[in-house]
Amino acid sequence: MFNASDPRLADYANLRDVELRKSMEAEHGLFIAEGEKVIRRAVAAGYPVRSVLLTRRWADPLADLLDGLGDRVYVVDDDVMEGIAGFPVHRGALAAMERRELPPVDEVLRGASHATAGAVDEGGPVRPPRRLLVLEDLVDHGNVGAIFRCAAALGVDGIILSPRCADPLYRRSVKVSMGAVFAIPYARMGNWYDGLEEIRAAGFQTLALTPDQDATPMDTVEMRERVALLLGSEGDGLSSRWLREADEQVCIPMSPTAMASGVDSLNVVAAAAIACHGLMRGTAVPQGRRQP
Amino acid sequence: MFNASDPRLADYANLRDVELRKSMEAEHGLFIAEGEKVIRRAVAAGYPVRSVLLTRRWADPLADLLDGLGDRVYVVDDDVMEGIAGFPVHRGALAAMERRELPPVDEVLRGASHATAGAVDEGGPVRPPRRLLVLEDLVDHGNVGAIFRCAAALGVDGIILSPRCADPLYRRSVKVSMGAVFAIPYARMGNWYDGLEEIRAAGFQTLALTPDQDATPMDTVEMRERVALLLGSEGDGLSSRWLREADEQVCIPMSPTAMASGVDSLNVVAAAAIACHGLMRGTAVPQGRRQP
Repeated sequence: MFNASDPRLADYANLRDVELRKSMEAEHGLFIAEGEKVIRRAVAAGYPVRSVLLTRRWADPLADLLDGLGDRVYVVDDDVMEGIAGFPVHRGALAAMERRELPPVDEVLRGASHATAGAVDEGGPVRPPRRLLVLEDLVDHGNVGAIFRCAAALGVDGIILSPRCADPLYRRSVKVSMGAVFAIPYARMGNWYDGLEEIRAAGFQTLALTPDQDATPMDTVEMRERVALLLGSEGDGLSSRWLREADEQVCIPMSPTAMASGVDSLNVVAAAAIACHGLMRGTAVPQGRRQP
Repeated sequence: MFNASDPRLADYANLRDVELRKSMEAEHGLFIAEGEKVIRRAVAAGYPVRSVLLTRRWADPLADLLDGLGDRVYVVDDDVMEGIAGFPVHRGALAAMERRELPPVDEVLRGASHATAGAVDEGGPVRPPRRLLVLEDLVDHGNVGAIFRCAAALGVDGIILSPRCADPLYRRSVKVSMGAVFAIPYARMGNWYDGLEEIRAAGFQTLALTPDQDATPMDTVEMRERVALLLGSEGDGLSSRWLREADEQVCIPMSPTAMASGVDSLNVVAAAAIACHGLMRGTAVPQGRRQP
């Protein structure tokens, strides 16, 4: 019924070609969600579905969701799926979803923006965010997704991206995040140079995470009511400008033996996980406060 | 000079074919280290080099190491490299290394075994290990490598693997670990059923990490002098037998909102990072003890 060059399937073409997908998704305002669980989370977060491409055996499990889509449901064989996507799609279902405009940074800083606001607006009082992450120029989509997953699981209230930070809605980010990119409000700075200024002006203490072992250990830093933790890119860490502008530099203490032997650092996701955990001290999430 | 089917290059064939490589590497007792930094760490840890396959531009940076290898240095063009390995080898150099027999579990428990003992035996008094990880049936080589990297960076003294846990010397484990698999002593249990028994008998308090939020938060558990932290497989977590046998079940507290929205857990590497950090409380590594 469909073959891999069918124009209706153009949204799904060459999913492994990062550069092509980046320009194509931006141009058409779409993103791809992969697998039943993640597709359902995108829909629940209020993202409109453009179409769904799936293999036969996923038609039943997804029936309720496919119902309203009319002829925008494309059921294909495994080999056609692989021919279009460019790799075997183990999760058997892909949805092309409409992007929405990102909120401005100040909405996330005020807590006025929630990723799910379009779908689930409970009209309660807005709780101002107390814990934010700020990601500077991360290049790896998997790392961005993994950090969103940690942040959501540990109770971080929002994420601010530098202008060049990798896209949380790129397929691999979405997948690695398990849909956490839909669960946590985020915004992208218009400009890097003054980016921290707005965050500090909104009352956030800025903590710059660095491998430098002379910085304050994350577990001992005195945190104010509102804290933004800055994480730098995979290779170089935070820029010297942001390191300098931050209120305090913080580190995760490492084994001296490891430092000496050259196994010198945690990767950015492991560091983010430990730092997010530390960030929740003294918040509503009961990190380490329950007695055994 | 070489083409992809040259029998001298057989050690490097089809590096992306996991099943083939697993049986082939076991049969020939070899493993593959990728990239200058990781190759150097393997050599420094005392693993013998079988041969090195590299592209022209890596001959100079690796010259000192290639010197003693005689005709076991294979310099090829990029496309030959890709033809043999089955993917573009961005790090430009692969070494086939000899495996060594793993130490028995009790050697790691006593601290008598060090990954680098063959190469760097300083003859000092052996410090008994105080912090161990025990990995049960992890299937993903990348996860195993990432956990070794965290463990080494944070000062864990050794790792015990269940019989079915993925191989730390598989190419992807080695690569993701950045060579930390050479820096930390590890052993593999002969049998899963009684596996914890030997660890407990050696005086280790066993802590089972679980997503169950009724367990004791990692940050508040009272740790004894010697602690072994048990980590379960990616999908199912720890087996019920190990959960039951452990001295205490511990958890990382999660955001109640995230739990409710179905973004329900950290991945195993993030959880391991946070847990390893918590594990170091009260050890020589100054986790959170330095005052700001």
